[in-house]
Amino acid sequence: MNASSENKQDRLHAVAAEVAARVEEVMRSDLESALQGCDPFLVEVLEYGLFGGGKRIRPLLAVLSASICGRRDDDVYLLAAAFEYLHVATLIHDDVIDHASDRRGREAVGRKYGMAAAILAGDWLHARSMHLVGRLTGSEGLDIFCRATGAMVDGEFLQLRHVGDAGIGEDEYFAVIARKTGSLIASTCAIGALFGGGDSERQQAMQNYGEKVGAAFQVVDDLLDYLGSRQQTGKKVGNDFIEGKVTLPVIAAMEQAGDEERLELLELFSGDRTGDGAYGHLYGLLERRGGFQRAQQVAEHLVQEAVESLQVFASAENEETYGLLAAIAEYILVRNK
Amino acid sequence: MNASSENKQDRLHAVAAEVAARVEEVMRSDLESALQGCDPFLVEVLEYGLFGGGKRIRPLLAVLSASICGRRDDDVYLLAAAFEYLHVATLIHDDVIDHASDRRGREAVGRKYGMAAAILAGDWLHARSMHLVGRLTGSEGLDIFCRATGAMVDGEFLQLRHVGDAGIGEDEYFAVIARKTGSLIASTCAIGALFGGGDSERQQAMQNYGEKVGAAFQVVDDLLDYLGSRQQTGKKVGNDFIEGKVTLPVIAAMEQAGDEERLELLELFSGDRTGDGAYGHLYGLLERRGGFQRAQQVAEHLVQEAVESLQVFASAENEETYGLLAAIAEYILVRNK
Repeated sequence: MNASSENKQDRLHAVAAEVAARVEEVMRSDLESALQGCDPFLVEVLEYGLFGGGKRIRPLLAVLSASICGRRDDDVYLLAAAFEYLHVATLIHDDVIDHASDRRGREAVGRKYGMAAAILAGDWLHARSMHLVGRLTGSEGLDIFCRATGAMVDGEFLQLRHVGDAGIGEDEYFAVIARKTGSLIASTCAIGALFGGGDSERQQAMQNYGEKVGAAFQVVDDLLDYLGSRQQTGKKVGNDFIEGKVTLPVIAAMEQAGDEERLELLELFSGDRTGDGAYGHLYGLLERRGGFQRAQQVAEHLVQEAVESLQVFASAENEETYGLLAAIAEYILVRNK
Repeated sequence: MNASSENKQDRLHAVAAEVAARVEEVMRSDLESALQGCDPFLVEVLEYGLFGGGKRIRPLLAVLSASICGRRDDDVYLLAAAFEYLHVATLIHDDVIDHASDRRGREAVGRKYGMAAAILAGDWLHARSMHLVGRLTGSEGLDIFCRATGAMVDGEFLQLRHVGDAGIGEDEYFAVIARKTGSLIASTCAIGALFGGGDSERQQAMQNYGEKVGAAFQVVDDLLDYLGSRQQTGKKVGNDFIEGKVTLPVIAAMEQAGDEERLELLELFSGDRTGDGAYGHLYGLLERRGGFQRAQQVAEHLVQEAVESLQVFASAENEETYGLLAAIAEYILVRNK
């Protein structure tokens, strides 16, 4: 990074921390009113699920998307909270589905409180998020939001279909991540723009930005599953392989691999994936065939496209917010957790 | 039943079948458009979950609630479908939570397609139901609906809290069933009335009616868990005991029991509940102490209150719908599955 982009990242971190603090405050007061008279165990599970760190990237995107369209009042933090609710709801359900033992360096909700509590707490957050989006953005916003949640489920199904199949192509991979990760981030940006009073061109621009940011984010996430360290990511490295998730480094390596290596890759994914030997073998193959490098290039390209989507907002007045949105996209490439 | 109430029940069954057929048609066409381009496995799981029988009582209540407030157009069937979606979503998630092997005489969704598919399909239906309610009734309807879904989750948590504790009182029992069953049925009726153009008095009347119907329904359901036959209910008799769910027959028997019997009851619920001996012992005790009789009386009283809530609608013009809503409440007392 050069000096200017370092400054941008510093500024981003300061704003992100400020937004995160305000959103957490709003979440706490929203929970207090929404959970009045509710079972204390429900309250405990929700608080555990919601306040265990988390970068609050979706709330930040909601706030900036509204801001770049001209709206900067307090209500936007409640809208922002709705996206975090939905995000956490999907994490909680995903962790139940994956039998995950931890998340962000702590026990996963399902592991700590049991599957029943986890499924129900996810349902509660799901309902609350829709409630807020419907209330704050009407049926137009709710439409975008519900299409996104439907797409997320569809993406999970597509992913289930591909488990253990190292023969899928990039198209199938991008179809999964567009639904699984891109759709919520894109809807966050589009609804933020709608809430901010942006016209359809601006809503579409933020939708595009969100799609690219979401895809880049997932590509890097999938890359970190191989290259990250457990200490930094809070996740076990090599987890995707164990679960049979075929991600871009694998697909890219397959494309460059010779016949024998392709067979090896297919067999590695369809065989026993729990041994250390298999993972080491796979890792070497991906490295040799440029799988990691290709994934990094794709992420860079997506980030560039994300930033280009912001063109329509280029003006002196928007300089600060524009710079922050660009910095979020660029941050994806330097994050290590 | 006398001849007049037999006629009313016949008429109810005819109308219920007609509404069920129309709602199923609407659900099929709604799914077709909402699931365009989606993973075929998701489609299969949803169709299996939605079209496996089911009495479609919630859709019927939605249609009649709108009708008694003066609206009888086609859109009401889509609104009605939304309530069935949410109902089925909760059944699917509940069956995962309870590790249920079957539902309505067929394999439960989670058993047939796996936990991951079941959780995700439930999430999809949840989102779709909110989407439709928001679109058709605006944020006013969505408000009622989301409060109900929040209450349902809260009811499940309350129920989890009480598992195996035969010392709970009627208040705690009614607090659980009001949330778990009453809230969705009450919101179905209230939102139906709102959609139908009913004023707040009429919305409140239908809300009250729904609360009472929902409570009566659950009391009878809990009674059938002891008295029903597997052939008729499609459920294993004595299931609640095995799961440690303390329902009205137990609570009522506790109130009439002597010290020694109370201790027996507490021990039966906190001990090993899987043996036939324990169930037989419990059954005899509940019968002897009038637990079943008391639950039946409570159900009758709730049904009476439900019918009384309809007073505000009494008019020559509404006679048919009024009679059907009353017949639904009365049907609860004669159903055996």
